Amino acid sequence: MSGLTPLERLALGAITALTVLAGVADYGSWAPVPRFLVATLALAGLAWIVSFATEQLGERFGPGVTGMMQSTLGNLPELFVVIFALQKGELIVAQTAIVGSVLANALLVLGLVIVVGARRSETKLMVFSKRLPRDTATLLQVTVFIIVLLALSLGAHDPASHHVKAISSVGAICLLIVYFAWVISYLRTDEAPGTGSEPERPPPRLGLGSTLALLVTGGTASAFVSDWFVNGLEPAILQLHISQAFAGLVIVAIAGNAVENTAGLVLAWKGRSDLAISVVKNSVAQIAAFLYPLLVLVSFALSTTLTFALAPVYTGALGLTALALWQVTGDGEAAEFEGWALVALYVILGALTLYE
Amino acid sequence: MSGLTPLERLALGAITALTVLAGVADYGSWAPVPRFLVATLALAGLAWIVSFATEQLGERFGPGVTGMMQSTLGNLPELFVVIFALQKGELIVAQTAIVGSVLANALLVLGLVIVVGARRSETKLMVFSKRLPRDTATLLQVTVFIIVLLALSLGAHDPASHHVKAISSVGAICLLIVYFAWVISYLRTDEAPGTGSEPERPPPRLGLGSTLALLVTGGTASAFVSDWFVNGLEPAILQLHISQAFAGLVIVAIAGNAVENTAGLVLAWKGRSDLAISVVKNSVAQIAAFLYPLLVLVSFALSTTLTFALAPVYTGALGLTALALWQVTGDGEAAEFEGWALVALYVILGALTLYE
Amino acid sequence: MSGLTPLERLALGAITALTVLAGVADYGSWAPVPRFLVATLALAGLAWIVSFATEQLGERFGPGVTGMMQSTLGNLPELFVVIFALQKGELIVAQTAIVGSVLANALLVLGLVIVVGARRSETKLMVFSKRLPRDTATLLQVTVFIIVLLALSLGAHDPASHHVKAISSVGAICLLIVYFAWVISYLRTDEAPGTGSEPERPPPRLGLGSTLALLVTGGTASAFVSDWFVNGLEPAILQLHISQAFAGLVIVAIAGNAVENTAGLVLAWKGRSDLAISVVKNSVAQIAAFLYPLLVLVSFALSTTLTFALAPVYTGALGLTALALWQVTGDGEAAEFEGWALVALYVILGALTLYE
Repeated sequence: MSGLTPLERLALGAITALTVLAGVADYGSWAPVPRFLVATLALAGLAWIVSFATEQLGERFGPGVTGMMQSTLGNLPELFVVIFALQKGELIVAQTAIVGSVLANALLVLGLVIVVGARRSETKLMVFSKRLPRDTATLLQVTVFIIVLLALSLGAHDPASHHVKAISSVGAICLLIVYFAWVISYLRTDEAPGTGSEPERPPPRLGLGSTLALLVTGGTASAFVSDWFVNGLEPAILQLHISQAFAGLVIVAIAGNAVENTAGLVLAWKGRSDLAISVVKNSVAQIAAFLYPLLVLVSFALSTTLTFALAPVYTGALGLTALALWQVTGDGEAAEFEGWALVALYVILGALTLYE
Repeated sequence: MSGLTPLERLALGAITALTVLAGVADYGSWAPVPRFLVATLALAGLAWIVSFATEQLGERFGPGVTGMMQSTLGNLPELFVVIFALQKGELIVAQTAIVGSVLANALLVLGLVIVVGARRSETKLMVFSKRLPRDTATLLQVTVFIIVLLALSLGAHDPASHHVKAISSVGAICLLIVYFAWVISYLRTDEAPGTGSEPERPPPRLGLGSTLALLVTGGTASAFVSDWFVNGLEPAILQLHISQAFAGLVIVAIAGNAVENTAGLVLAWKGRSDLAISVVKNSVAQIAAFLYPLLVLVSFALSTTLTFALAPVYTGALGLTALALWQVTGDGEAAEFEGWALVALYVILGALTLYE
Repeated sequence: MSGLTPLERLALGAITALTVLAGVADYGSWAPVPRFLVATLALAGLAWIVSFATEQLGERFGPGVTGMMQSTLGNLPELFVVIFALQKGELIVAQTAIVGSVLANALLVLGLVIVVGARRSETKLMVFSKRLPRDTATLLQVTVFIIVLLALSLGAHDPASHHVKAISSVGAICLLIVYFAWVISYLRTDEAPGTGSEPERPPPRLGLGSTLALLVTGGTASAFVSDWFVNGLEPAILQLHISQAFAGLVIVAIAGNAVENTAGLVLAWKGRSDLAISVVKNSVAQIAAFLYPLLVLVSFALSTTLTFALAPVYTGALGLTALALWQVTGDGEAAEFEGWALVALYVILGALTLYE
């Protein structure tokens, strides 16, 4: 672990302590709020560790493979949280955690990345490749298509609305096929968009053994912490008088995603626009077009089934987010106010879910 | 008819036989399923004949005029099916046949054209002119505007929802005016997009007399077969336990459109991207912005009135298809996975209508 | 006032006479229809005076500042009409007046500007800068996001639907922040898009004193006339058997906006495409992202509260208009038929509201 900076070593230590504490809090039945707080911090920390280890591993294989690994490993904490939530019958938390992960990345993180990127640019416009934003928009559009059709069918109480599970399975399989068709073409070029013109990347700072150890430990720990996190969620919600929707859409989403995505902010600040956009966009595409359909299929083995049927507000929020994302980034440039516009959408949605 | 290939002559013979057989089946009251199957095959065949004859005729006048003629003649079979369905009170079949024709072309056929075109391209991106896809998106958007507003009005049971026929008439007239404003500007340039740089077109292979004979015979026969097809639809649906929506959206749509549009696939395979996109896009624009409003106006003379009021699921599907079409093709290039994404949307929709 | 043309002086005189007459009609309790007609004409005239004076003032400061002033002064008449309507409990009129102002500018006026601009262009395509249309699309999208989410929440009767006022306030504040972030960046460049290549602008024709006098008088008079206009609206509606929605969406919208925007048509005819598009687009952005949220906040001091909760039809119309606007102008060029398409959307909507 000699390749780590002192700050990173400190972070590793703190996260280990938080993880142990979260376990103690769970078994010791602490008071709801501190117990939930510790689990949230531990989860956010572990999400960062898994993401960091994946990145280190990826730098040995080229950016294309990194992207692929991030899609399968980098979202492990969200995966575990949703699975445990479904297993414990917390469907609302599971749904809003997925939707919230998409929205926190696509609105909050991307918005801040654009604000930072546009401010640092001499022309006051953040400029990046158009291809990845458009690919993400297309993938997100397929997910939105399934969700909106099911919502309309359920709203109209038509015959198909009694077959949400079957239609969701077909949708999940179609979505995964489209996602892999995209990943394969993305891997074949084996070059992240725009890396050609980017400054040279640093060599990996961790040995392969350390990286793998970090990854396995981080992944396993995040499975345990996810369990404790979901255990602590319900009592904390009751005590804090917040809605399940707010917990999933804001707290879980930020704990699971936003921290790891500070990477995007740092890249934007360094002027590496393409890579910054790529980090955030890949997260959005992976959650919407890989993790969500995967969880739909996996959930048939769990006590609660996850489908693509969401409440009207989240259906609309996802649809409009897909549009906003495309509108703001599809032309390959974004101004600071467009970043604020995306952040504003997240704040408005957060305010609304506070009252759900 | 000496300009025809042996395969084409064989096809003509087979279609003639199928047409006769469909008539025999109708008057002889065959068992529902074979009777419906024969009528479907005959209809698909006649759709190809009318389309082929229109194309031959068009090659004498330049691509602009061809486009115009295809809009008035090439969709004759769909026109007859919808008119007979309305006359027999089959509103759901009529509606889903129109919506299905738009969706089968915009999602299934266009998707496959993109898959083939992108695979055949050296850059793995199908590249084409932006103008026509954007024009189609605008025309489709006007149709979607009427349909969505009516759906919202009906959903809210507001006063305007009692005047769907009057509002549909206004919408139909507006839509036809916009369509003709587009057709005139399209004809004025009298050059299909990108034909300048395309390989030279072959001369027409049929004499004018043969072409006209084929067109008149094919058109007349398709009127009869449409009648028999609609007669056979209801008993076949009952026996096969499929929904009316699936019959209209998938079976009628593919029988009436997809076969003739294999032309688009062949063109994409030959690397003639602009023409391939143009064939499919023109079909979409014609059905949505010409055939549909025309049928709304014509239906006032029939026993069942066709309006722009559709069930929520089809309203949403059309709206999202308009967006997907614009998103995928509006930038003048499309990757293979985007083609699969469009096909996936069609499969998902087909799966949903199976349960309607 | 020596800088005015004879026609402009005649117009000033006529508007003064109409304003006096509107006051006489209000206090003298004339018959509903002539009374309302006089108030409508006076209001349209005063809207033109305020807009003209703002423009004259702006020419002393450069186009950036003009844009800013138009956002605060140019929409004074609409502001007064909505405030008086809310004060008198006419919520439907207030809502539809705002929505109608957005739609009249974005569909009717912009559509006609494109028709004129495309016809005058040698290539039959109106060409303009992409930046402003895309900025407007982004601002409009934020407004639409709030409106659609609230509509979905209300439609589903979910818990958040009981907190429409609180969510609207959050939305209004977010929207104003995004709007000012945009205005500041727009002012910083202090050059209207494309003015560099535009023909030279004429010097201001009015002295500063005359301009300010005209602005203050016009603004004050428009406050009074707005009051009389709203007074006369209800009796006129009853007598003419038109709906409140049609009155707000068509009559108020055209009286308050369309007249001043003939400026856009004149500019398009002169081939100054960028400036023509800019005049109309700025109006749309200002009403949707500045005037509307401002009125939401101001209305907490009035007897009726304005929120972002609109009837489904207007919610849908705004959302689809935002899309159509982006689709038609986002690529920096527009054909004549696209102008007709926008006009058609307005006609369809007007026809629908006739029956509301």
